[in-house]
Amino acid sequence: MYYPEPIARLIESFSKLPGIGQKTATRLAFYTIGMEDQDVNEFAKNLLSAKRDLRFCSICGNLTESDPCAICTDPTRDRTTILVVEESKDVLAMEKIREYRGLYHVLHGTISPMNGISPDEINVKSLITRLMDSEVKEVIIATNATSDGEATAMYLARMIKPAGIKVTRLARGLAVGSDIEYADEVTLSKAVENRLEI
Amino acid sequence: MYYPEPIARLIESFSKLPGIGQKTATRLAFYTIGMEDQDVNEFAKNLLSAKRDLRFCSICGNLTESDPCAICTDPTRDRTTILVVEESKDVLAMEKIREYRGLYHVLHGTISPMNGISPDEINVKSLITRLMDSEVKEVIIATNATSDGEATAMYLARMIKPAGIKVTRLARGLAVGSDIEYADEVTLSKAVENRLEI
Repeated sequence: MYYPEPIARLIESFSKLPGIGQKTATRLAFYTIGMEDQDVNEFAKNLLSAKRDLRFCSICGNLTESDPCAICTDPTRDRTTILVVEESKDVLAMEKIREYRGLYHVLHGTISPMNGISPDEINVKSLITRLMDSEVKEVIIATNATSDGEATAMYLARMIKPAGIKVTRLARGLAVGSDIEYADEVTLSKAVENRLEI
Repeated sequence: MYYPEPIARLIESFSKLPGIGQKTATRLAFYTIGMEDQDVNEFAKNLLSAKRDLRFCSICGNLTESDPCAICTDPTRDRTTILVVEESKDVLAMEKIREYRGLYHVLHGTISPMNGISPDEINVKSLITRLMDSEVKEVIIATNATSDGEATAMYLARMIKPAGIKVTRLARGLAVGSDIEYADEVTLSKAVENRLEI
């Protein structure tokens, strides 16, 4: 005797999610059965609606309900700056700090020679097209501070600079509130290298 | 600007699951959007069907599609033995070893004086009713080897023994394949106490 068919199928669905193995999937599936009817119905509805109602903005590639997205169509935003990020989540992280008022471009990944991901496989071409005949004066590259993120930043800089557009990237240094004692060596040496006058 | 409404709602649904916080929920929600349409539809369908098609067996309390469950109605099973477990998952674990051919009883929890869970709140009463006028000769208590599991086992033994039914519980000892060096003290002392002649 195995799990009853309905729960076996639910376990399979859960285990397709990243970082969720057979054991966690089983735990989640059993928990779901014990949940309120209403919560489960809502969960199912939310799954379908997220998949159905969300699309990627045809201009910047950000996740949106309407195309073009709210940021691309916002007349109050500074159209001379584009901030390039890896994922839609990063746009949200930037928006939360309420500091940046320009436009975005979402790459949906990074160039990764190790994993065989070439520039053609991420949302780079549309960025280059966007920069042609535009009023953009600066491209801020905000890819993650990982080796793939760095490789992508270098590649983009090489592509964009010849067009006479300023290319910058986010500062590397000590995280605010962190201890020097616990900072890794590379971060610490970057922090020394890019020290600021006070 | 916050997350688009559909994904915010999906994140909320995911974060209602046990052990899934805001960050993991966000990761799962974004992953779901990138999944195949078919997989997401199936996920939603499986959620609803698991909740709708599964019930608890009115005899043993096990999770089942049909009531009474397949084990309770199986004429080939030994009706003189009942194995008592905490959760439906434990029935599956027992069935996997293909050793036990008797019936089950699922408590849906344990007595827990610490958390204020009394015998009335778990599926004990129906077990006692089941034992009256039945052909059951042995009750095997297979609650977890935790303090609540032990307390429940002791309580059940005190209730059932006076009826002249044999009450046993699973052996405690070294896990097969484990090192004595790493066994905890209580397990090791139980293993010595219950040593077997070879």
